[in-house]
Amino acid sequence: MALTRIGLAGLAVMGQNLALNIAEKGFPISVYNRTTSKVDETVQRAKLEGNLPLYGFHDPASFVNSIQKPRVVIMLVKAGAPVDQTIATLAAHLEQGDCIVDGGNEWYENTERREKAMEERGLLYLGMGVSGGEEGARHGPSMMPGGSLEAYQYIEDILLKMVHNGIEYGDMQLIAEAYDVLKSVGKLTNGELQQVFAEWNKGELLSFLVEITADIFSIKDDQGEGYLVDKVLDKTGMKGTGKWTVQQAAELSVAAPTIEASLDSRFLSGLKDERVAASKIFQGDYSSGETVDKAQLIEDVRKALYASKICSYAQGMNIIKAKSVEKGWGLNLGELARIWKGGCIIRASFLDRIKKAYDRNGELANLLIDPEFAQEIMDRQAAWRRVVCLAINNGVSTPGMSASLAYFDSYRRERLPANLVQAQRDYFGAHTYERVDMPGSFHTEWYKIANSKI
Amino acid sequence: MALTRIGLAGLAVMGQNLALNIAEKGFPISVYNRTTSKVDETVQRAKLEGNLPLYGFHDPASFVNSIQKPRVVIMLVKAGAPVDQTIATLAAHLEQGDCIVDGGNEWYENTERREKAMEERGLLYLGMGVSGGEEGARHGPSMMPGGSLEAYQYIEDILLKMVHNGIEYGDMQLIAEAYDVLKSVGKLTNGELQQVFAEWNKGELLSFLVEITADIFSIKDDQGEGYLVDKVLDKTGMKGTGKWTVQQAAELSVAAPTIEASLDSRFLSGLKDERVAASKIFQGDYSSGETVDKAQLIEDVRKALYASKICSYAQGMNIIKAKSVEKGWGLNLGELARIWKGGCIIRASFLDRIKKAYDRNGELANLLIDPEFAQEIMDRQAAWRRVVCLAINNGVSTPGMSASLAYFDSYRRERLPANLVQAQRDYFGAHTYERVDMPGSFHTEWYKIANSKI
Repeated sequence: MALTRIGLAGLAVMGQNLALNIAEKGFPISVYNRTTSKVDETVQRAKLEGNLPLYGFHDPASFVNSIQKPRVVIMLVKAGAPVDQTIATLAAHLEQGDCIVDGGNEWYENTERREKAMEERGLLYLGMGVSGGEEGARHGPSMMPGGSLEAYQYIEDILLKMVHNGIEYGDMQLIAEAYDVLKSVGKLTNGELQQVFAEWNKGELLSFLVEITADIFSIKDDQGEGYLVDKVLDKTGMKGTGKWTVQQAAELSVAAPTIEASLDSRFLSGLKDERVAASKIFQGDYSSGETVDKAQLIEDVRKALYASKICSYAQGMNIIKAKSVEKGWGLNLGELARIWKGGCIIRASFLDRIKKAYDRNGELANLLIDPEFAQEIMDRQAAWRRVVCLAINNGVSTPGMSASLAYFDSYRRERLPANLVQAQRDYFGAHTYERVDMPGSFHTEWYKIANSKI
Repeated sequence: MALTRIGLAGLAVMGQNLALNIAEKGFPISVYNRTTSKVDETVQRAKLEGNLPLYGFHDPASFVNSIQKPRVVIMLVKAGAPVDQTIATLAAHLEQGDCIVDGGNEWYENTERREKAMEERGLLYLGMGVSGGEEGARHGPSMMPGGSLEAYQYIEDILLKMVHNGIEYGDMQLIAEAYDVLKSVGKLTNGELQQVFAEWNKGELLSFLVEITADIFSIKDDQGEGYLVDKVLDKTGMKGTGKWTVQQAAELSVAAPTIEASLDSRFLSGLKDERVAASKIFQGDYSSGETVDKAQLIEDVRKALYASKICSYAQGMNIIKAKSVEKGWGLNLGELARIWKGGCIIRASFLDRIKKAYDRNGELANLLIDPEFAQEIMDRQAAWRRVVCLAINNGVSTPGMSASLAYFDSYRRERLPANLVQAQRDYFGAHTYERVDMPGSFHTEWYKIANSKI
């Protein structure tokens, strides 16, 4: 048998699909999994999908030896200890110059640690999260490993993947809030929701997530009456990448309120029992009694969703920009938007607009002030304010939309009340302050002056 | 000369004040600083303040040797490298069983690292952030080191200090928003603001921060016309502890939107040039045109501030609770509130109420559902919603108040739209979902079913 071009270890859903994708592109691939039934399953799928050049192995030695040198092995196993175990298994058979690519969502400090350990053994180690979910892995993930793996800046990839997922959290939360307002205040049925999202997907909101949302509302429950979406428990799981984005944003001093609100909403969704208990304590009429014009509401929510989305992406891009500046990477943000458009979950026509904004001005301080985005926000802000207030007056939380609006209103404000906070800090901690009318650093004995008057 | 009871190294503002405080309590104290003029300055202050038992040293050896064994040296120097330098200087003269206490705001992982290094040399190392600012250090910091230093759970202290500061960020931001709404929408003068905050300080908002806010509005600019607060630049500095709180909250899966909003507001305040530029792009009339009844507005803002504050403290307490559970500390949250009341910047009658809430129920899931706090929120929620909507309709951002309100409205909601998010995750990533009507974990081929219908 001729040697294969690449290897892949870890054949859960993502691994299987990525292996089939690579094989389908014409690259002979070797696959391995500790539980060997997964190997046979993948080989079987490759046969059924048209005799793809995919070869299964039940032991690590023959797996490694089937790959052409210098070997590249993509690893798709659970983050943490399973990654370390797989590395140990593979490294025992790999030779100097071979390369392991971690395609999972690993915390970058773990990746750095492993990279160092592998380097000492003459092995190359790259972290490179694969995005796009099951469907994306099968038909076109955002970051395809290919010929020039060496060129990948692995830390870049991890960060970009993290922030990508943070933006994905934002998109999903904003869509969920739009759903909530339309359903809880506008009283739309699932059928109407399906139509609204399908319609939205024809315009500026065109995106994978809006498309699948429309699909979701169309599906009846096969276990009983009604629609499946109403039977799904309102608890959202997570894998850690949203958390990392929030932590990195804080580390880099970048405001990311929409992404934070999305993460917090997942945390709160998990407290189902507490929420049920609290809902009994805070019973009462949360209806504002306002008459809602359904068609107007749908238009308003669409605009609020779009304006909020601009804010969310502005935050994500600024996290990446801040890291790029810190590390001296000189990243091209427009190019990044183009790459994301390729295969990942946030793929959307919207990314074209972001690319154009950075093409117009590579040094753009914030997406919000790009002339096109700025105009779009101005055209939508009245609707945006109406939706958030309507939700508030009906007791429906829109944490992502209201955080986005507050972000916009803070960013476009020449004078914030931060002068008071700085005065407080100087009062109790002598942290000093600057003045608006002259340069320099000042300290005032606020306590003494205020109390000497009495 | 008799040996002193304790030593203190690092005589910047905080160090000087803490040393004087300890001396004033009757504990003879030795002080040292690398720049010796600071030593002389502190000795001079001790003389002027009534011949306090404070002794200055210009070299580390005689400083260390002046302290009774086992020696305790409090170190108050800048976090990071200066701490390591000071440890090296002191450790050269300390003996087995001696103890260094880091009173600065150090990242707890650095503290853990140093603790291990010191342990190998037979020295004890404790991290113990001192709270209360310049005034607090002088007259009563939150955590006084004393007889049984050994008993301090040092990690506990660091975490508690971090979260304490995160809550402090929240309090300051919420007060700043109240100020902004009263000033920008209600058109209150500084004189009126001074009266409002002084009045508020007589009621449920009684606190150090509200008290000093009233003081701040009373101070005229001695460099020109008008009030000093209007001349202070609207850029807020920070020292890192708010950041750590946000990162820890994310790590512990605790929603902390009010504290995050406060941190983000500081970040955005720093972008003054960008804000000035954006304000020109987003010009226009941001006045809602609503007639505002000043007296009603002041009452509404007071209620909104109080309700938001409950949410902020609920978040902070839950971070500590989550860490306590993770580490098995069994912390008594009511006792913690009592300690904070002692000397720190967030000291307030409010902390008594928190203590009572935990005394009533040590296992309280969230402050919001304590019967007294729940009633207070219910009594204030109409005003709270009015203030946030009024601000939104006037283009004034209230990120902390609106994040708090969204937190409340999410927490008290039996059914959140998280079912849609989980359906999306199952659609694109086969992450599975639970159902509301039966146990188990489910996966649906959403794409296939939705598209087979077409």
